[in-house]
Amino acid sequence: MTTAITITDVSITPVAVQDPPLLNSVGVHEPYALRAILQVRTDAGLVGVSEAYGDDPTLDRLRRAAAELPGLSIWDLNGLSRRVAVGLGEVAPDSPTELAGAPSVAKAIASTVSAFEVALYDLQGKATGLRVCDLLGGAVRERVPFSAYLFYKWAGHPGQEPDSFGEALDPAGIVAQARRLVDRYGFGSLKLKGGVFPPDEEIAAIRALREAFPEHPLRLDPNANWSVATSHRVATELAGVLEYLEDPTGGIEGMAEVAAHTGLPLATNMCVTTFDDVPPAVAAGAVSIVLSDHHFWGGLRASQKLAGICETFGLGLSMHSNTHLGVSLAAMTQLAAATPNLTYACDTHSVWQVEEVIEPGAIEISGGAVRVPDGPGLGVTIDQDALARLHEQYLGCGIRRRDDVAAMRVRYPDWTGARPRF
Amino acid sequence: MTTAITITDVSITPVAVQDPPLLNSVGVHEPYALRAILQVRTDAGLVGVSEAYGDDPTLDRLRRAAAELPGLSIWDLNGLSRRVAVGLGEVAPDSPTELAGAPSVAKAIASTVSAFEVALYDLQGKATGLRVCDLLGGAVRERVPFSAYLFYKWAGHPGQEPDSFGEALDPAGIVAQARRLVDRYGFGSLKLKGGVFPPDEEIAAIRALREAFPEHPLRLDPNANWSVATSHRVATELAGVLEYLEDPTGGIEGMAEVAAHTGLPLATNMCVTTFDDVPPAVAAGAVSIVLSDHHFWGGLRASQKLAGICETFGLGLSMHSNTHLGVSLAAMTQLAAATPNLTYACDTHSVWQVEEVIEPGAIEISGGAVRVPDGPGLGVTIDQDALARLHEQYLGCGIRRRDDVAAMRVRYPDWTGARPRF
Ligand SMILES: [Mg+2]
Ligand SMILES: [Mg+2]
Repeated sequence: MTTAITITDVSITPVAVQDPPLLNSVGVHEPYALRAILQVRTDAGLVGVSEAYGDDPTLDRLRRAAAELPGLSIWDLNGLSRRVAVGLGEVAPDSPTELAGAPSVAKAIASTVSAFEVALYDLQGKATGLRVCDLLGGAVRERVPFSAYLFYKWAGHPGQEPDSFGEALDPAGIVAQARRLVDRYGFGSLKLKGGVFPPDEEIAAIRALREAFPEHPLRLDPNANWSVATSHRVATELAGVLEYLEDPTGGIEGMAEVAAHTGLPLATNMCVTTFDDVPPAVAAGAVSIVLSDHHFWGGLRASQKLAGICETFGLGLSMHSNTHLGVSLAAMTQLAAATPNLTYACDTHSVWQVEEVIEPGAIEISGGAVRVPDGPGLGVTIDQDALARLHEQYLGCGIRRRDDVAAMRVRYPDWTGARPRF
Repeated sequence: MTTAITITDVSITPVAVQDPPLLNSVGVHEPYALRAILQVRTDAGLVGVSEAYGDDPTLDRLRRAAAELPGLSIWDLNGLSRRVAVGLGEVAPDSPTELAGAPSVAKAIASTVSAFEVALYDLQGKATGLRVCDLLGGAVRERVPFSAYLFYKWAGHPGQEPDSFGEALDPAGIVAQARRLVDRYGFGSLKLKGGVFPPDEEIAAIRALREAFPEHPLRLDPNANWSVATSHRVATELAGVLEYLEDPTGGIEGMAEVAAHTGLPLATNMCVTTFDDVPPAVAAGAVSIVLSDHHFWGGLRASQKLAGICETFGLGLSMHSNTHLGVSLAAMTQLAAATPNLTYACDTHSVWQVEEVIEPGAIEISGGAVRVPDGPGLGVTIDQDALARLHEQYLGCGIRRRDDVAAMRVRYPDWTGARPRF
């Protein structure tokens, strides 16, 4: 009988993790990326873990929500949504139950719900001996494919030694980076983070990748750094070369204009990021693939809801990633394993992290895929020493909110990060 | 550890249940309604139960699917979908896993998946000590409201004694029937099955109900027996009187034409019955409320998927019912309890059944609501003696497929059941 297991307390530990100087449309990654590690304790002695964003606004929301959670059953996911909404002041504590706890909630609430929901699934798994993917309907695949996430990058952060990856600022550098990642991890798909250099340079990089890896599906993601006209031009040039083009331009309207004139599938993790965005995007025909992300869509159940919508409306489904650690990778893998129509290789930044918070270290990627962790629950264990060390690093690093624009200004003082730049 | 529990065998028992002469747009209920009771046994000794349609085509599909189920984990709902598809010849046994087991499947498969999925949820609950609603995300309400399902009816089946309800063929008869059901069960909403008499008579019945029950939300469901023009006229007359008008006319296109000229919300369980119907219905603005039914949408998870779609696209959600027994009522109640945006009173035919297959008899309706059964699982137990008796009744009754048209021809030999009649 697992019914009676309830939450007693929650610890939220912000951590800072070394991050290389990866370039993107608005700037460059700072030397440290922030994450939060949640540990949710119960009256049964079980502890559930989760990983969330680590910026100050997120931490504030997590802490306010956490105060509402003692007493909550580990199975009551609708109750979780309600309590988070109450904790964040979005719902009055005495409002009728059925009007709160609705499956989709405002974006700020969604990411907070997600952080705790993953920990509750971890607890449900630990209480029953099941993997999270089993609780989500069962694994349709035991190995989840991920793509090699390629970045233009500097050799090192300004004023620091070069990192082990070194510089990648042209087609040859990107191909060398891809070669290294494919050799090491066996990736079967390649994704280039674009929007960094003039489009012709990025087209050249994609063509160089196609030549070097004739069979690998290729993706390009300029993060809305192109005008509609530029997007049209690139889409025409890369039709038949890319598996999909990700967020060439900003907004549902702009994406719809691009989509209307290309046969190249357009994907997004920018113009469709909440359930409210779905109906206008569907009506406009703005995208053909949505990149889900349990962190901001509202959790694993919300991601399944999104998957159901994508299937119903004939949209493809892939998976987005921010910089993350092994707890999130486990959650992403468990979810992807149980999502039949998530048939594109998922994104992950994992290969760029040299530090890890789980025992015995980063989850292995081989053959371009991650094996579903054995469980129970997420199947990962927090390395408490590593957690303490990364928390110290957080306390000392001075970063409290991601700011790729400021990081770029260290080298280019006039940098604004304004989009579209091309 | 519940991981290892797997199915060993399945029994499928068709039953016939006495049913009163309830009139509808195509004819009249036959003297017996058919259902099937499923009992799914496992290697842990647990037995999961479910209730499905009992007609011959359904039984054939259930039996073919059941042959594929031994060895399936009670948690592997995606695996269930795949095995059912294999059993029904829709998917080759050696096809890639991720291409099968997709959450939405053809309608014939959906009802078969549902029949077994409910039993698996019952088993999951029995294995963990949880109610099905807990496994579905937690109860947002402990009492699920149902509406009084009013029918025009004959006093008795042709050649039989009158039943205890007697005749209801005019406004006074409908009001008397409503009074009896409200007094007995405390219903707070009233639904009239229409499409039986000329629309003016049914309008008069609705007005009589409004006068007798000034505060009760009212619904009228002519089951697509009206032309678009008739629908326009009735919608105009009953705007402000009805909570919603259900399937006045047939098809997405026809419903959209009606919707375009009335402020009265239109509901359906006829023109949107599969996930494939959703995109065209949304695009056409055909309906504002979908009546879900786990029996044909593909189960409890599929119904949650539908709920997520309705919430995302701003559609209301209510619940449809065919004639059913207590196992289905328990499943409907567990599902409704865990569905935040199912905020209309659900439909149920329960009040018309005098026979029951669960111990110690029909689930109580009081205050117009059903309390969520305590569980574990669905929270119901099969009365094996009642099951044997109702199966004997099935063997003897001669009915193998519902045919309301034929039942009507007993009295009106020229009856065709063709719609729209008005
Ligand atoms: Mg992206
Ligand atoms: Mg109906």
